[in-house]
Amino acid sequence: MTNDKKIRAAIVGYGNIGRYALQALAEAPDFEIAGVVRRNPTDIPAELRGLPVVSDIEQLMPVDVALLCSPSREVERTALAILSKGISTADSFDIHGDILALRRSLGEAARKSGAAAVIASGWDPGSDSVVRTLMQAIVPKGITYTNFGPGMSMGHTVAVKAIAGVKAALSMTIPMGTGVHRRMVYVELLPGYQIDDVAAAIKADEYFAHDETHVTQVEDVDALIDMGHGVHMVRKGVSGMTQNQRLSFDMTINNPALTGQALVCAARAALRQQPGAYTLQEIPVIDLLPGDRDQWISQLC
Amino acid sequence: MTNDKKIRAAIVGYGNIGRYALQALAEAPDFEIAGVVRRNPTDIPAELRGLPVVSDIEQLMPVDVALLCSPSREVERTALAILSKGISTADSFDIHGDILALRRSLGEAARKSGAAAVIASGWDPGSDSVVRTLMQAIVPKGITYTNFGPGMSMGHTVAVKAIAGVKAALSMTIPMGTGVHRRMVYVELLPGYQIDDVAAAIKADEYFAHDETHVTQVEDVDALIDMGHGVHMVRKGVSGMTQNQRLSFDMTINNPALTGQALVCAARAALRQQPGAYTLQEIPVIDLLPGDRDQWISQLC
Repeated sequence: MTNDKKIRAAIVGYGNIGRYALQALAEAPDFEIAGVVRRNPTDIPAELRGLPVVSDIEQLMPVDVALLCSPSREVERTALAILSKGISTADSFDIHGDILALRRSLGEAARKSGAAAVIASGWDPGSDSVVRTLMQAIVPKGITYTNFGPGMSMGHTVAVKAIAGVKAALSMTIPMGTGVHRRMVYVELLPGYQIDDVAAAIKADEYFAHDETHVTQVEDVDALIDMGHGVHMVRKGVSGMTQNQRLSFDMTINNPALTGQALVCAARAALRQQPGAYTLQEIPVIDLLPGDRDQWISQLC
Repeated sequence: MTNDKKIRAAIVGYGNIGRYALQALAEAPDFEIAGVVRRNPTDIPAELRGLPVVSDIEQLMPVDVALLCSPSREVERTALAILSKGISTADSFDIHGDILALRRSLGEAARKSGAAAVIASGWDPGSDSVVRTLMQAIVPKGITYTNFGPGMSMGHTVAVKAIAGVKAALSMTIPMGTGVHRRMVYVELLPGYQIDDVAAAIKADEYFAHDETHVTQVEDVDALIDMGHGVHMVRKGVSGMTQNQRLSFDMTINNPALTGQALVCAARAALRQQPGAYTLQEIPVIDLLPGDRDQWISQLC
């Protein structure tokens, strides 16, 4: 990488993650914002004035890399279209069980067009996956527990909103240790519905059926929402033949801000990989940083 | 990597780290121990019986990779000789300021012979460096503090032993937060020396002059030594434009056992890199694990 030529990046999808990814791009020394791609390009919030807002990434060309900030279920379709133009992609796809399939699909498209896709690169999956992999390597026998929260679960909140009678909802994930989580659910009800019926429906939902779940009716869900989140990962195990090696990693973070920043790191790294699709574990961590390797080796080694 | 063909590894140097590296190799599913190289190959402790113990690595050929378990100051010379034979190397060189120079020197030799050297791959530098690099990437503005201990510092202990009147010594590193450390030094004295004079000499030494240092005379240093160690790394900073993102990483570990295990991971990774020399930050963490990538992506992503 040279210091003069900046990376031209587009934000694709402008919800919560897109807003924070834009901030992270603006703060990055090696990026230039090509613009924002969104379904309705006439909807331009104040912070986007002065930036190109378009409905098709072609209108922003040339673009080196696209930060995909749309929901996970739209990532594959969006990424395939962008990769086919030879533009690299970074996404924070978070459906753990579907990552390998996404990697295969985007990998094929990327190799065909000479681009790279860095996938599942938020914080979990993403930076947490790097730490879990490192923990597994240096302490190969043992158990890693990933304890999430306290924080809002997007997936669980969406599941509650789909239940009949729910006007608005918030599902908080509370870490109880050893990877066990309590779900604290707050709901506003539509007229004519009873909290006991709604609570029973929530507790029967596949998202909640296996966890301790508490449902509370509130007047105003919006007043409860904060985007702070956290994780506590612990591993106790064996290095070689030595027992009781103990590792832990903790974060207390603004969730979309960390995801947006991780996407910027992944976008930067994408341009340093051979054509193909990669999870963050498959990329040298030093590729996530701007500038030359030597300075970071001196500073961080 | 195929599952049938095991990696043939040699241990070079058989002190504390060598012993634990041997245990980690014996437990690794993908390695075969070619033998141990040591200055005096007739000195064969019980656990080495049945293994080839030689003075020259040529006698163990074929060897895929050598785990260098000699002191840091001998790493460059030893590695250059081994790399020139086309054998890859892994070392836990720990003189932070000299890592870039070692990387240049071993990189040149490795590229010439088609081998790879994974350098500075203990826990600090090593696995800690990977975590520091990741923390810097996802929270680009802020300060990372690395707090070591409580545990024995090899470097400081050696420095105390070099002082006139010291028969035996132990220097413990005590973490005081924000990267500040206290030194607790325990010494046995030779006849005719006074503890006050020895303590003054220790406190004047460059290793101790900048830290709070306490020196205590004891009857038997050996009775105080345990190889437990630890680290607490903390970073508080900014992702994008969002302040107060907090990260931490903790370990409580047997020091040589973790180093030995990290060396095995580095040796495995060396065989998956293009010719050259690399720090752990420059290697995908997934390369530290045995077997195929896909299973680890499913399991750890």
